[in-house]
Amino acid sequence: MAAASAPRRAADTWARLTRTNPAVASIDALLRGTGQVMFQNNPLTGLLFLVGIFINSAKLGGAGLLGLAASTLAAYLLGADRTLIRNGLFGFNGILVGIGLAFFLEFDPLLGVYIVLGGAVSTIVMMALANLLSPWDMPALTAPFVLTAWLLLFAVYQFAHVRPSPLIAPMPLEPQATVQTELRELPTGPGDAGLTAANLAHGFFRGVGEVMFQDNLLTGVIFLLAILVNSRISAAFAALGSLLGLLTALALGGNGVLIYHGLYGFNPVLCAIAIGGLFFVLTWRSAAYALVAAVFSAIVFAAFVVLLSPIGMPALTAPFVLVTWLFLLPRAGFKVLQPVALADVSTAENTRASYRLRERGPNATPEPGEAT
Amino acid sequence: MAAASAPRRAADTWARLTRTNPAVASIDALLRGTGQVMFQNNPLTGLLFLVGIFINSAKLGGAGLLGLAASTLAAYLLGADRTLIRNGLFGFNGILVGIGLAFFLEFDPLLGVYIVLGGAVSTIVMMALANLLSPWDMPALTAPFVLTAWLLLFAVYQFAHVRPSPLIAPMPLEPQATVQTELRELPTGPGDAGLTAANLAHGFFRGVGEVMFQDNLLTGVIFLLAILVNSRISAAFAALGSLLGLLTALALGGNGVLIYHGLYGFNPVLCAIAIGGLFFVLTWRSAAYALVAAVFSAIVFAAFVVLLSPIGMPALTAPFVLVTWLFLLPRAGFKVLQPVALADVSTAENTRASYRLRERGPNATPEPGEAT
Amino acid sequence: MAAASAPRRAADTWARLTRTNPAVASIDALLRGTGQVMFQNNPLTGLLFLVGIFINSAKLGGAGLLGLAASTLAAYLLGADRTLIRNGLFGFNGILVGIGLAFFLEFDPLLGVYIVLGGAVSTIVMMALANLLSPWDMPALTAPFVLTAWLLLFAVYQFAHVRPSPLIAPMPLEPQATVQTELRELPTGPGDAGLTAANLAHGFFRGVGEVMFQDNLLTGVIFLLAILVNSRISAAFAALGSLLGLLTALALGGNGVLIYHGLYGFNPVLCAIAIGGLFFVLTWRSAAYALVAAVFSAIVFAAFVVLLSPIGMPALTAPFVLVTWLFLLPRAGFKVLQPVALADVSTAENTRASYRLRERGPNATPEPGEAT
Repeated sequence: MAAASAPRRAADTWARLTRTNPAVASIDALLRGTGQVMFQNNPLTGLLFLVGIFINSAKLGGAGLLGLAASTLAAYLLGADRTLIRNGLFGFNGILVGIGLAFFLEFDPLLGVYIVLGGAVSTIVMMALANLLSPWDMPALTAPFVLTAWLLLFAVYQFAHVRPSPLIAPMPLEPQATVQTELRELPTGPGDAGLTAANLAHGFFRGVGEVMFQDNLLTGVIFLLAILVNSRISAAFAALGSLLGLLTALALGGNGVLIYHGLYGFNPVLCAIAIGGLFFVLTWRSAAYALVAAVFSAIVFAAFVVLLSPIGMPALTAPFVLVTWLFLLPRAGFKVLQPVALADVSTAENTRASYRLRERGPNATPEPGEAT
Repeated sequence: MAAASAPRRAADTWARLTRTNPAVASIDALLRGTGQVMFQNNPLTGLLFLVGIFINSAKLGGAGLLGLAASTLAAYLLGADRTLIRNGLFGFNGILVGIGLAFFLEFDPLLGVYIVLGGAVSTIVMMALANLLSPWDMPALTAPFVLTAWLLLFAVYQFAHVRPSPLIAPMPLEPQATVQTELRELPTGPGDAGLTAANLAHGFFRGVGEVMFQDNLLTGVIFLLAILVNSRISAAFAALGSLLGLLTALALGGNGVLIYHGLYGFNPVLCAIAIGGLFFVLTWRSAAYALVAAVFSAIVFAAFVVLLSPIGMPALTAPFVLVTWLFLLPRAGFKVLQPVALADVSTAENTRASYRLRERGPNATPEPGEAT
Repeated sequence: MAAASAPRRAADTWARLTRTNPAVASIDALLRGTGQVMFQNNPLTGLLFLVGIFINSAKLGGAGLLGLAASTLAAYLLGADRTLIRNGLFGFNGILVGIGLAFFLEFDPLLGVYIVLGGAVSTIVMMALANLLSPWDMPALTAPFVLTAWLLLFAVYQFAHVRPSPLIAPMPLEPQATVQTELRELPTGPGDAGLTAANLAHGFFRGVGEVMFQDNLLTGVIFLLAILVNSRISAAFAALGSLLGLLTALALGGNGVLIYHGLYGFNPVLCAIAIGGLFFVLTWRSAAYALVAAVFSAIVFAAFVVLLSPIGMPALTAPFVLVTWLFLLPRAGFKVLQPVALADVSTAENTRASYRLRERGPNATPEPGEAT
């Protein structure tokens, strides 16, 4: 395809440089680590993610890079498998730890130390969980980020020199209180309220942005494009996930301010990408299964908000991790689903092509355009 | 035995019908799913359980049937193992989810959707846990129900359109407050109070009924009879479990209203049945072990009440699941206990007979009346 | 070495007596169980630990002995592996349960029953976790103590006849409140305050003592000597752990009263001993890894304090268990670390010598003084 040749050639040049130039190889690993936050092992996706983050907040972008560097460096120093490092598997938890800590804590010199420690520990937890889950051939997902960031965040109420931002504070639970369901940017005050196209667009795109704590419509658009660069199927499921999270919350009467800021979206986005074509071969049935997971994860988000409200801590991506683990663990136990071996996971398109190929027999050739 | 021939013939007829008539087969699977709530793979036990529930509350009965149908249907649609479905292993968590959600939430059109989703998810969680626990040959017990129902219940504080009933509400903890230990139906007001035979009978039988949220003496009686239909040993341990839960709570000074309503009983009932002859071969030592588990689970119930009181959520059967897992996991590590392979679990009577047979050698014949 | 011959001969005599005299064998098992609280499989270490405890509190010492006896007796009655019992592996959780319950509950006749039940259950949980963790060749650490004691402690708010001491009470969380960082014995009132040598010594030695709830400088000194009797490396890491816990808390601005009483020290002490030479072969890199774990565990202690503050329950050694599991689980996944098989764990000195020997080849002889 001639139209694709310019980007294709650029990609080839980059791939060649990563083999010959260690600095480029390192940058490639860091960019892939960024892309892996949404399962995209692609440096261009990672680069666009960073663009999306820095457009919204240079502070969060810088914190993310620090965590990313710390976690990747720790993996090198500890002698982790080089192929895993190159594929960014020791980076995505680190960047999330960096952004997450900067998002919920006051800016402060000690914050840097905290992020470096958190990034390094996330690499240890990643290896721990990879080993723990290996008997079931299950992925660690973002559990290393969730666990590490939770422990570091919970602790800050006890420390004078690392302070929580006003975003985290214990909330009294009042079961009989009325939930404010009107879709709006701020709890009170002026601003367009209700089911307007603009408000729905904010909820939808911020839902994608919030996967990396980016409460910004434009960042959400860029994130979707960044996924699209690597996989149309993953981009479609990311969009479907955000949409279903939004609709589930609206249907059940969730808080309209949380919905507007995409907080009901980011867990469903990740569930939908993971189950929709990555860890199960994409079929109509696995697609439906992925969408049920997305809907359920929106409810589980609310459950974690309640569970953590006595200490006022954020759910992070724990709902995604829990729901995806529960939906992946049946593996071959459900005959209508075809699990993908962890070592075979690449893009949804590749997986689909190679499993189709397998079904057609060993001598079949791929159809043109089948493998992206 | 001529006296047993009429029920025996009815059972044979039913067994034949389940093989030839798909509608009867489906009903059989649903009834066995109901029976499996207390480990009784017997359609008559399941039927009597349903009678006990509907006598107390048609609303809870209907909600239970909806959850039961949703979980069993999900297992069919996802292609779970047909033998497991027929034995009701994808039903017992579903019926508990249905009853549990209807018990703790306001009656509402969305409740039906919530129950169907919960029932279906309980089947996914069941398969997930079955796979997760298979390296240790351990049963999932009611963990799928507990996990699914917790997530759906926790979430409701965040939703305007699914509302908690007054039964769930955060409770302030006051460690130095006096616990009201007098056995009575209501916290205040008239009514017989203290260690009367009637109050003890209520605590004892409601303890059995509360396994399925049935706060009703008569339902407890029917449940015990329903178990007895399938296994005298299980019925005996159910009774011993409820008794020990009651006595443990009285000895430690538990809240007398909770004791009256059987809330200290239902977890010990399940622990005693599971460990008393089902997952370990019944001997005097494994019986004693089961009773220690029952006593401990009554304390663990109180622990879960405290743990969940900041968010005001119910313990469900989590104490049973945790204690039974802890007491089963040693498996062959304790020489005085003889673990039963998961695939061999049927009734306590059968297990006992077949393991006795094994000890006597391959050519031994069972003694008359040994296998029930 | 002539100087060492008197203690060496006493040790030999004791070893001979344990083989011939069942009473001595039992005492040996109990003393080793005490020593195993800090991974020291040595009866003299255990004896000195008991001396340190009784010097501080005969009540806690007696409660500890009751729990120790109950857990060890339960292991005998249940038919646990005799070698494991003799090495004290069913004792260390029991003694901790005994001391922990006596520390946090009011003295009362029922407390004895509670401790005996807790000790016995800790043995069941120990065997359960040993089996659960065996696919990863991972140790249960003090998780049986933490889990058993938590369940028994959480429950007491619900019981009139087992009462919590004022040490456990729900604490309101006020994220924006100022943390009192001044090092001092009491929150208010007279007494030396600030970074004085005496206050630092209290924090340092009490940090070692608090591993067994002994809030006493002299006990901490005796505990360090007790470890030294068995292993210089473990004693060094215990000291480094307490020091790093103290320094981490000071650097982050932890509560000065908690620091003074060694509460930031006991988890790092255990992490440092476990990772520093016991479960990984001691090298400069594994030593650095152990110290990172120690620092992180001090933060995780603060996290658990916050997590448990709504119900006002103590963290116990949960931070140690969690951090050590996370740092051990990577096993051979990090090439710079050399994991020690669970069956090979003895003293850090022995492990080091035998692994060095292995590297030099099968015909090498140990250097003089290499194996302690």
